[in-house]
Amino acid sequence: MRYPEHLLKLITVLKKLPGIGNKSAERFAFHLIDWPEEKHLEMAQTIQDIKKKLKCCPECGSLSEEPPCLFCDTKKRDPTILCVVGSPKDVFLIEETHEYKGLYHVLGALLSPIHGVVPNLDKIKERVKSLGVQEVIIALDSTLEGDATALYLKKELSSLAITTSRLALGLPVGSSLDFIDGGTLARAFSGRRTY
Amino acid sequence: MRYPEHLLKLITVLKKLPGIGNKSAERFAFHLIDWPEEKHLEMAQTIQDIKKKLKCCPECGSLSEEPPCLFCDTKKRDPTILCVVGSPKDVFLIEETHEYKGLYHVLGALLSPIHGVVPNLDKIKERVKSLGVQEVIIALDSTLEGDATALYLKKELSSLAITTSRLALGLPVGSSLDFIDGGTLARAFSGRRTY
Repeated sequence: MRYPEHLLKLITVLKKLPGIGNKSAERFAFHLIDWPEEKHLEMAQTIQDIKKKLKCCPECGSLSEEPPCLFCDTKKRDPTILCVVGSPKDVFLIEETHEYKGLYHVLGALLSPIHGVVPNLDKIKERVKSLGVQEVIIALDSTLEGDATALYLKKELSSLAITTSRLALGLPVGSSLDFIDGGTLARAFSGRRTY
Repeated sequence: MRYPEHLLKLITVLKKLPGIGNKSAERFAFHLIDWPEEKHLEMAQTIQDIKKKLKCCPECGSLSEEPPCLFCDTKKRDPTILCVVGSPKDVFLIEETHEYKGLYHVLGALLSPIHGVVPNLDKIKERVKSLGVQEVIIALDSTLEGDATALYLKKELSSLAITTSRLALGLPVGSSLDFIDGGTLARAFSGRRTY
């Protein structure tokens, strides 16, 4: 393949996007080439402004243009409930459900002894005390690392006089029993609710 | 959804990539946010340099950093065969087969009366004459527009003393008859070769 050098560079850069392999990156590249220059400049500007424009809220760790973020506004949100999530994206996913009106805390990293990652819980402990939190909802992934982090969190927060809860495990809405794995079905049984 | 403004802008920009909807653009955006700033700058620079670094060869219309392009080098390539393709990408696809050593001509647009597009054939006629081309291979898509353009090309080039050929239609390599449509099968029959 005798792609011009800059085209190769463009494909290499686009391949760094998640889930994008050679074929998709090539498709993106040839599509980009057809764009007018102003659209190139707009895209380039948007990408290079990411760090400048999108900040981590120093309180909760979620994304915002101007810290402190909207999610930390204790006048509009219930400061007695704190929802712990793994990444900033999760905050928006939970917001979309319109089910939750408390505060958030983004851990940033899940417990992973193999990679030597232990999330720092000093900030969350400090916030639980200063905000007068009564319930911590652990909204972490239902994976090995999520489970380990949830247990670690529960243990570390046990000295504080608060309730800790974790998201329910069970059937996804709209699913058929045929396609559910045994582990999920067992959890759905043990977590059944009066109907 | 209360995404910060710049995040929304980033998602909107990424959604302009081909085949990328809201969910994928969001995934790209959150992935980009985690990158270090140097990677943002590298990507931005690569995108904004596209028009500066990638030029259309004034002869054949394919992409190159420095016109005239490698594909127009008549010392290394056979100037008696000219392969007509629809877009610059097709040149690289054909190059990858290592089957073809002639010259290329990128039409840029296929005949589409609905959209009022009629490809300009002045340049190709001029090249056929000046290069001493003996065979024009029409390597256009096997679609309605590709077929129409191929017919138009054949008619327009008929006054010149050259052979015109078109890519064979038939079974893709590795395919099973079960999954082939009738039209393709009929073409594969009529185009059968002694074996």
